[in-house]
Amino acid sequence: MGEVDTKGVVLLDFWVSPFGQRCRIALAEKGVEYEFREENLGDKSPLLLKSNPVHKKIPVLIHDGKPVCESLIIVQYIDEAWPDCAPLLPADPYARAQARFWADFIDKKIYECGTRLWKLKGEGQAAAKEELIGILKLLEGELGDKKYFGGDAFGFVDIALVPFVSWFYTYETCAGFSIEEAAPKLVAWGKRCMERESVAKTLSDPHKVYEFVGLLKKRFGVE
Amino acid sequence: MGEVDTKGVVLLDFWVSPFGQRCRIALAEKGVEYEFREENLGDKSPLLLKSNPVHKKIPVLIHDGKPVCESLIIVQYIDEAWPDCAPLLPADPYARAQARFWADFIDKKIYECGTRLWKLKGEGQAAAKEELIGILKLLEGELGDKKYFGGDAFGFVDIALVPFVSWFYTYETCAGFSIEEAAPKLVAWGKRCMERESVAKTLSDPHKVYEFVGLLKKRFGVE
Repeated sequence: MGEVDTKGVVLLDFWVSPFGQRCRIALAEKGVEYEFREENLGDKSPLLLKSNPVHKKIPVLIHDGKPVCESLIIVQYIDEAWPDCAPLLPADPYARAQARFWADFIDKKIYECGTRLWKLKGEGQAAAKEELIGILKLLEGELGDKKYFGGDAFGFVDIALVPFVSWFYTYETCAGFSIEEAAPKLVAWGKRCMERESVAKTLSDPHKVYEFVGLLKKRFGVE
Repeated sequence: MGEVDTKGVVLLDFWVSPFGQRCRIALAEKGVEYEFREENLGDKSPLLLKSNPVHKKIPVLIHDGKPVCESLIIVQYIDEAWPDCAPLLPADPYARAQARFWADFIDKKIYECGTRLWKLKGEGQAAAKEELIGILKLLEGELGDKKYFGGDAFGFVDIALVPFVSWFYTYETCAGFSIEEAAPKLVAWGKRCMERESVAKTLSDPHKVYEFVGLLKKRFGVE
């Protein structure tokens, strides 16, 4: 990725993206000021295409002209580039590996499974629903009775997962089930996260996510 | 992942796995002694299932009873748990983000594309071949005229990619093309890596990889 002509910190993003929201929460936790640039994903900007020529996806964080891509890599970059406050990853190597493991698990599983849940009908949707319940129960088991995934401090795994809390209403409404019944401690954790300003000011309104998914359904010809 | 009853450093692995080989190279670079335990992937050990209950996959590194899963997370753990020699990731936050980006790119693309290349025939195989050539050319562009991906020091991206060099012969033979023609600098980089003891003693013989893929083809009913 070559240098691009921006000063300071710029985030190329799209409002409803859970991946973009991870970066916004991390920047807010660190108190980093930045310029938010909303991308039109149907007509991506030359700056986005130049900054992320490999994947051509948001979010991209540009720091003094140097682009960083892929949300979990961006969050780790934010943690390492602004190390003086609000550490997002723990210091202990084993705890860091565990945090990376669960963030990676969330990254690989939830969005893909959630997309099948709203795109498919019948058996495909039922399978996605069962799979999503399994994923959330597994995460709830990892959370246990801790305040946050890393213990008392809000951090990397919380940031990886919490943007999906805004999507819970959509998943529940599309497939007819209650996430609170399936994973009550996880829902309580989501509410605890929402007490943080960094999360509350970032997460999309669940009804707006549902409206947005309705538009996607129309575009993909899903009833 | 709960604690398991092993002392010291144990690697649960399978000889031909490029993911396992990443861990073996990283341990060799650090000079860490460990016990290698070959898994039978058709009948996984209780220790593997207990150590990686989420993915049930090799490699797993167990350090004083504590399991770490997912090869790139294991390599980062090795770098952080034995920090006093042979740093695998650079120190600069931006260089670290770039190394993570390319390792992640390799992780997402090569094995999946390579598997389509040997499993499919006709158009599917031709598409996978073109895609693999594109991936390797992109990596060659990132390498440029540098000795290793990170510059003069062998590191994280080299470790992520080099095990696939043993698979090049299989890809070439299955789909009838020359990787050296498509990406000569990358092939030269692979030979440079093979001058390191950590790599030379780890990588599988390309002909044994080809034989192994022949067995897989029979199992999957591919001619």
